[in-house]
Amino acid sequence: MNSSIHPFDAAIAFEPQGEGQWQGHTSAAYANMVGPFGGVTAAQALNAVLQHPELLGEPVALTVNFAAALADGPFEVAARPARTNRSTQHWTVEFAQQQQTVLTATAITATRRRTWGADDEPMPAAPAPETLERADLRGRVEWFRRYDMRFAHGFFPPAWDGKERDSLTRLWVRDDPPRPLDHCSLTALADVFFPRVWRRRATMVPIGTVTMTVYFHADAAQLAATGSGHLLAQARAQAFRNGYFDQTAQLWNQQGELLATTHQLVYYKE
Amino acid sequence: MNSSIHPFDAAIAFEPQGEGQWQGHTSAAYANMVGPFGGVTAAQALNAVLQHPELLGEPVALTVNFAAALADGPFEVAARPARTNRSTQHWTVEFAQQQQTVLTATAITATRRRTWGADDEPMPAAPAPETLERADLRGRVEWFRRYDMRFAHGFFPPAWDGKERDSLTRLWVRDDPPRPLDHCSLTALADVFFPRVWRRRATMVPIGTVTMTVYFHADAAQLAATGSGHLLAQARAQAFRNGYFDQTAQLWNQQGELLATTHQLVYYKE
Repeated sequence: MNSSIHPFDAAIAFEPQGEGQWQGHTSAAYANMVGPFGGVTAAQALNAVLQHPELLGEPVALTVNFAAALADGPFEVAARPARTNRSTQHWTVEFAQQQQTVLTATAITATRRRTWGADDEPMPAAPAPETLERADLRGRVEWFRRYDMRFAHGFFPPAWDGKERDSLTRLWVRDDPPRPLDHCSLTALADVFFPRVWRRRATMVPIGTVTMTVYFHADAAQLAATGSGHLLAQARAQAFRNGYFDQTAQLWNQQGELLATTHQLVYYKE
Repeated sequence: MNSSIHPFDAAIAFEPQGEGQWQGHTSAAYANMVGPFGGVTAAQALNAVLQHPELLGEPVALTVNFAAALADGPFEVAARPARTNRSTQHWTVEFAQQQQTVLTATAITATRRRTWGADDEPMPAAPAPETLERADLRGRVEWFRRYDMRFAHGFFPPAWDGKERDSLTRLWVRDDPPRPLDHCSLTALADVFFPRVWRRRATMVPIGTVTMTVYFHADAAQLAATGSGHLLAQARAQAFRNGYFDQTAQLWNQQGELLATTHQLVYYKE
């Protein structure tokens, strides 16, 4: 790896294979327990749209469906503008391995104009990141080491004792090494939470995200202004039922601006 | 229209055109200001999956992207199982008019097993539906008349005076005439809220939903048990910024069971 390239940029880089087609690779730097960290996979799906020569505007919404576990190694990427309007564009994306679909995604990009605006979900109070200790996650999965995480509420349960509690987590998080925020890294950050069911049940059951949606409230200029500082990331579940739970989450910058809201549905066993 | 068929079933019915292909029609009974009520369009996208001969299991997630305004009349529907696993299936759906894509969607279906479960978003207190007056929405758009709506909080602002307030709405809602709940009608109900920006700003600006996601926490048996009673539906926005706002919403049955959580991103002008 070229040491002047941030590991995240190396992870989401593609080799062009023709119009709207690329080859991507899973990244050892963002390895999960099995296969890659889903946040980077989601960022790669967005990056396919952003690399496309017909791109109009900036991302406003992304939905990524994890159809199968990615095997470590290369995969084929295809992105297509399904519909281009005056100021919005609708995208479909697919990843394949061994000619089998492993991921489907849709995205919407748009040219945005300044309008009236307001945040209806205020940033919750939390101690400043400098006053919190960085979580020591060495020895766990590799991708944890690519993020500086400082938990303000809802870290891993103190014991895996099956004692039920709330599903809420709040943490400050940024790339490590620091990297100026953009829509791809924000997408990955939207998947940074450990499984809500582990917190809720204090029990480590097998899980897997099946679908994830990100709504981008910030444009590129606002992300650039945010820079490489910590974001306050908050996640909780609304329902756990018969093998699936949802997660609803928000990411604010230190100025209290809500940059993205995100949701996912996660499979869990038992 | 056959008077023995519920208008919702008539609205989402398709004419088969070959494997995974159908013709759908917009429905005058569910007409919006311009074109059809998006909730019925979303239900039609789900119905394409449910009609497919290769269907595995029941819906757990649906994302519908409204790529262009549907013109009143027929449209072409195509659904494809992109990936079939042991207990989950990933779907892509597209609608076209005049050979132009007007809608893209993805869905996930799954066979569900009984597991540990919990609701982390309790049903808010609200007066019983019988104690609230049905909202008189005659003279507004046609599709409003297909729903019995009883607002417990956050009806239309008392005056369109630009006075800012919260973006929260809570209402009891069911099909009119009553119809036993299923995943298609629940999908439509997930889009039943008037635009959050109208409530927040007390100003009627032009809007349009660009994407909508539904997570189904209830299986067919739980929906059948819910029957045709009112659901408590709650929606609010988290951020309004530069032409787009999000909506996060929940739907409970009268027993307090969270049946679905849903999110959308909505374009607004000015």
